[in-house]
Amino acid sequence: MDKLIELIRQKDNPSVVGLDPKPELIPEQLLDEYSHDRAGALADSYEAFNRAIIDAVCDIVPAVKPQIAMYEALGPVGLDVYCRTTRYAKSKGLYVIGDVKRGDIGSTAAAYAAHLSGVPFSDAMTGAEDIEDPWSQDCITVNPYLGEDGIEPFIRSAKETDKDIFILVRTSNPSSSQLQELNAEDGRPVFEHVAALVEQWGKETVGESGYSRSGAVVGATHPKAGARLREIMPHTFFLVPGFGAQGGTAKDVAAMFDSNGSGAIVNSSRGIIGAWKKEAKYSKDMNAQEALDLVMLSAQNAAIKMRNSLRAALRQ
Amino acid sequence: MDKLIELIRQKDNPSVVGLDPKPELIPEQLLDEYSHDRAGALADSYEAFNRAIIDAVCDIVPAVKPQIAMYEALGPVGLDVYCRTTRYAKSKGLYVIGDVKRGDIGSTAAAYAAHLSGVPFSDAMTGAEDIEDPWSQDCITVNPYLGEDGIEPFIRSAKETDKDIFILVRTSNPSSSQLQELNAEDGRPVFEHVAALVEQWGKETVGESGYSRSGAVVGATHPKAGARLREIMPHTFFLVPGFGAQGGTAKDVAAMFDSNGSGAIVNSSRGIIGAWKKEAKYSKDMNAQEALDLVMLSAQNAAIKMRNSLRAALRQ
Repeated sequence: MDKLIELIRQKDNPSVVGLDPKPELIPEQLLDEYSHDRAGALADSYEAFNRAIIDAVCDIVPAVKPQIAMYEALGPVGLDVYCRTTRYAKSKGLYVIGDVKRGDIGSTAAAYAAHLSGVPFSDAMTGAEDIEDPWSQDCITVNPYLGEDGIEPFIRSAKETDKDIFILVRTSNPSSSQLQELNAEDGRPVFEHVAALVEQWGKETVGESGYSRSGAVVGATHPKAGARLREIMPHTFFLVPGFGAQGGTAKDVAAMFDSNGSGAIVNSSRGIIGAWKKEAKYSKDMNAQEALDLVMLSAQNAAIKMRNSLRAALRQ
Repeated sequence: MDKLIELIRQKDNPSVVGLDPKPELIPEQLLDEYSHDRAGALADSYEAFNRAIIDAVCDIVPAVKPQIAMYEALGPVGLDVYCRTTRYAKSKGLYVIGDVKRGDIGSTAAAYAAHLSGVPFSDAMTGAEDIEDPWSQDCITVNPYLGEDGIEPFIRSAKETDKDIFILVRTSNPSSSQLQELNAEDGRPVFEHVAALVEQWGKETVGESGYSRSGAVVGATHPKAGARLREIMPHTFFLVPGFGAQGGTAKDVAAMFDSNGSGAIVNSSRGIIGAWKKEAKYSKDMNAQEALDLVMLSAQNAAIKMRNSLRAALRQ
């Protein structure tokens, strides 16, 4: 996780912008720019929208987190846009967390690990062998329900490619309690057992920062659990979703950081990319470029505000 | 689940062929047919291989189950092949189970549910609104770790589109026990709690067959758990992986069926699509068509053998 931690340090900002485009987050003017079928217009407008957001925030935040479901919802054409988005984000020096939540049994998890390791490529003319990386991700999220043999292929790929993963531990959604808070015989909830496994799986990849390549997803909506998990998982970096629109505050997430103010990165999606919808200045009479300019300005302001509120909460 | 159950009845065969192509399962002659880069050659050869398998088994089995990880491992070009494979399988009258194991929080799960509901499409010339379904799946697999709000969008889509889902309950891999067999305070393992939730989530979609639209994935490698789960989940149809190559036998899975010999469908992947590798007749001197003919014949024989062994085990 050293690469991400260094970028957070450089920007003095432990926050990540979620690139989760949805039809209702795209200004209509932008959609109207694309004249072909609706799925194609959505895909093209997602790409233009994402590029604008990336341009707006790349000097403020260390990382972006595209949610692949939003792209997959458009079919293969959407996944092309996903790959073009991650590539563009990397070209701007951002660390890219692919929120893919994949997980399967060992041999299949190994196939999914191509998200990190890339695809074998041999040039038809020269015969040269190489690796192509269509996904351009520095990190992906992974589901733990299948246990260690479903996780190990991702950790192996992460080691080989100097990348990272985040494993779901305590998710931010209301019904996550059904399974994750089920108490085991020792009185501890399932998510603490998962946490202990994640900390153990990370042992061999602890870097200079003191954190391993296997991070944990811990929702901002569970501040008490977050503080407890920080104790159980001293070498595990946290990805904290649920800030802002889902209800988590800077105060809620402060206890998920370590005593040096490191140890976690907080995600906001709608709060940044949908900030334009709260702008009084927005009007349907704007043209596409005017609307996109407002998207950029409001995203930038929202990203700065989030950064400042996290800085303040961590310095208290 | 009525559509799948009717197809199983018509073919008197509760088995499904897993379309999980991997480089080592593709005859070299076939790969050599495609002269461009390796990822592209793999994608094209996967498509030719899958079409051959589908042609070989479509009169024997009711369903196929492509594992999306194998296609995703090639990047977006692989997902195009996934979609062409599912479309071809449907054109041959097969029920298509997309083994995608998706799962996320509510609003994101709703985006993933486009795997069932398709993509909004409007014709640029006429303005006509329609739905396009790039994925061509009758059913997908889903991960339960996020609880009900991560499942509900899939069930809603399934209802609206007359499709189904299978939720992971007890997976076939060795380390699945780490989390799934953890005992809760009431002494019952986590997977039984998940089973109770799945049965409950299915209540409102029980069809004429007596089974709901929310099935359960129960590994053939856990025959005792399978028998117990059959009792806990009387309205839940089972998808049973782990047969054959992973060690599950027809006897192991018999207790996962109901007293009428219905209630489950058993998957085999390598055992069918990799059967050609055990053929003494195979030679590297064969041309691509000869190799593909052997792939088809051996897949057909293996599918018939599996059908007959399941029929025999269920009639005892």
